[in-house]
Amino acid sequence: MADSGEHANIGLLGCGTIGSGVFHLVGKNERLLTMAAGRPLRISRILVKQIDEPRPFPVDRSLLTTDATAVLQDPGIDVFIELIGGIEQARSFALDVLGRGKHLVTANKELIACHGRELMEEAARSGSQVRFEASVGGGIPLIRPLEESLGGDRVQKIMGIVNGTTNYILTRMSDEGSTYAEALAGAQELGFAEADPGADVEGADAASKLAILCSIAFNTGVTDTQVYREGIQGVRPEDLENAREMGYAIKLLAVAISEDDGISARVHPTMIPLEHPLASVSGNFNAIFVTGESVGDLMFYGQGAGSLPTATAVLGDVVNIVRNMDRPPTSRRSYWSRAANVKSIDDALTRFYMVLRVLDRPGVLAQIAGVFGDNQVSLESVVQKGFGDNAQIVMITHQVTERNFQEARKRLESLDVVLEIPSVIRVESE
Amino acid sequence: MADSGEHANIGLLGCGTIGSGVFHLVGKNERLLTMAAGRPLRISRILVKQIDEPRPFPVDRSLLTTDATAVLQDPGIDVFIELIGGIEQARSFALDVLGRGKHLVTANKELIACHGRELMEEAARSGSQVRFEASVGGGIPLIRPLEESLGGDRVQKIMGIVNGTTNYILTRMSDEGSTYAEALAGAQELGFAEADPGADVEGADAASKLAILCSIAFNTGVTDTQVYREGIQGVRPEDLENAREMGYAIKLLAVAISEDDGISARVHPTMIPLEHPLASVSGNFNAIFVTGESVGDLMFYGQGAGSLPTATAVLGDVVNIVRNMDRPPTSRRSYWSRAANVKSIDDALTRFYMVLRVLDRPGVLAQIAGVFGDNQVSLESVVQKGFGDNAQIVMITHQVTERNFQEARKRLESLDVVLEIPSVIRVESE
Repeated sequence: MADSGEHANIGLLGCGTIGSGVFHLVGKNERLLTMAAGRPLRISRILVKQIDEPRPFPVDRSLLTTDATAVLQDPGIDVFIELIGGIEQARSFALDVLGRGKHLVTANKELIACHGRELMEEAARSGSQVRFEASVGGGIPLIRPLEESLGGDRVQKIMGIVNGTTNYILTRMSDEGSTYAEALAGAQELGFAEADPGADVEGADAASKLAILCSIAFNTGVTDTQVYREGIQGVRPEDLENAREMGYAIKLLAVAISEDDGISARVHPTMIPLEHPLASVSGNFNAIFVTGESVGDLMFYGQGAGSLPTATAVLGDVVNIVRNMDRPPTSRRSYWSRAANVKSIDDALTRFYMVLRVLDRPGVLAQIAGVFGDNQVSLESVVQKGFGDNAQIVMITHQVTERNFQEARKRLESLDVVLEIPSVIRVESE
Repeated sequence: MADSGEHANIGLLGCGTIGSGVFHLVGKNERLLTMAAGRPLRISRILVKQIDEPRPFPVDRSLLTTDATAVLQDPGIDVFIELIGGIEQARSFALDVLGRGKHLVTANKELIACHGRELMEEAARSGSQVRFEASVGGGIPLIRPLEESLGGDRVQKIMGIVNGTTNYILTRMSDEGSTYAEALAGAQELGFAEADPGADVEGADAASKLAILCSIAFNTGVTDTQVYREGIQGVRPEDLENAREMGYAIKLLAVAISEDDGISARVHPTMIPLEHPLASVSGNFNAIFVTGESVGDLMFYGQGAGSLPTATAVLGDVVNIVRNMDRPPTSRRSYWSRAANVKSIDDALTRFYMVLRVLDRPGVLAQIAGVFGDNQVSLESVVQKGFGDNAQIVMITHQVTERNFQEARKRLESLDVVLEIPSVIRVESE
């Protein structure tokens, strides 16, 4: 501790939606936080880009500064909270404060998914701590439960809804029968989607979060680029309707499985049975289903974003650090130091839902069945819908490797009787 | 640390279902546990009642002893795991080891719900720790997330399915249309209910768990005797059917609400809307819904009992203790030291479902409505079912205090036109 008396002093790096929420809660829940952390918390400096900016909660102007060096090198600060977002500047700030033995809390998923290993190593060198509960699942306690509570178990599988924007869009499409474009516009109007929704709808946000969860759950370093991803832009209202008829919901799932020969990590629209706990997670909520060899199935559910839920998670990390601040550091799990063996998507084993627009003539099904048979794809269900120009075949396969399925798909596309393959969606059964 | 080298030495008190599971996992997941705890764990002694007893997992016979003193006073043991159950002997063992500065992990909900405060005080005196994650929700990480992750938030409400036996029975009644007695017999056959199911079906088990959750979430000492409880024995297949028709499921819920004038804590069969995440928690699973002022709604879901899930939670506590074992203790939240202000059930505000068997004659409804009006009970829905001797009125009230409702109920029972009130069940809407 610096000469700051009994308080733990906090430096806020960034003060937008989450930062001003943190400031608000530190004032409002002072007594509770003191009890939880073992001493009072004080926000002593706040680094911002501009002094005057709209913020959801008012902050003490006298703490604001645009002088990064003054904040980063303030010897009185014990814990830094990094909320500036982005990668490069956040990384340089983080390495700077960790290098001087200060503790770091961040909500920055890209930073951790890209550079988690580097930050953990720097922290280990200087005896400081890095915590990032808010980087996945917003306010949902997840990282620490995986790290400690499941420390005695072998996590086998993670399956989660970790992006609220896409879940909101898919829920709306499902409830209202609207198209992707309509639902996206509605989400943007209500502030549930950004003006540029790319990182959300293309699955990049979910991929970063899955990389972090994999690293912790499987105790090995996974980066976001190792996660296969597909977005939700291709999901059609008809697919949601077909899914419901067959007893499924469609969700953008982040799925990771630990197998003997490596880790399978992927983000894609997925059909899951309506009775699965994840199927009824609607709107902008997040939920993460974890299967441990001994503990069985667990699920963590809550708000995956938002100022105060995320600020609560940030403060949970601060509490954890401050409780243990005066003690020498313990050895941390070294999950970032081993690079993970992440398998190619080609080796992933899943079931597939597939829609084919076909010519309505005898022998078509036989040709299609032949292609599947040649590629070791067996079918669980096949339904013909519509007639004439609208003839469609809706099918679900049994488990098959991605490689074999994509080979069959390519062959099908080249058949004269197949006009179009408007939809392919993976199916998870448990 | 004693002179035991680098290992953390564990003394197991009791070695039945959970204890032998702990022994099994310590051997099987040695590498993972060492990584999580920062050093290897070793079970060095096991206190049992009888050396030869059937156990779900084999244990090393050379560690077993029936000599309590030899185990309790073994100076080489760092952490004791109490799994003998019951209250008096467990309490005396716990106080004994805490008094000598040893750490304690327990899965014993009655012990914590009755004597948590005493154990925490003894631990504070001697600088040791008490942990009890496995006492509520089996393998679900819950206690530590509430303590630390939500340390910066004000928990407003807890609503949980915390007893697997009753949830299994109610799920079976609902799925099969069977009676309580039939479903209980089925549960007993499959080992989901004890031969003497009293503590489960009467709500005592859930009340102990709710007392523990209240103490942590509301930061104040609540004991099991302060929790109002009603069991599930009176729930009829017809009630489950009526509930479903009206869009509800019936669950045994543990409900606690923190209000300005005190805490409301109660366990009773409850109707909740089918779209509530708790409604689809089926079989012997547990789920706890927590509402924080800032974080919003969270839910924790998983296996509430069973050898390996519970053993995993016990080991999570051991990991947490061993990670911090060489450090001086921090001040812990003092939630046990203030006695809670728990309100009388008379002041609880809920909605009620009520079934009246009545004479099928004109003016009956007017008389009943008059009684409700006199007691400030207003009705949300009233449906008449059946005719003649089978005439029944099924109603749901708006929110009303328990006091007013019970007064109205008493008055109704005294009316000549009311033959019987076969069912009264509370209704939660959110």
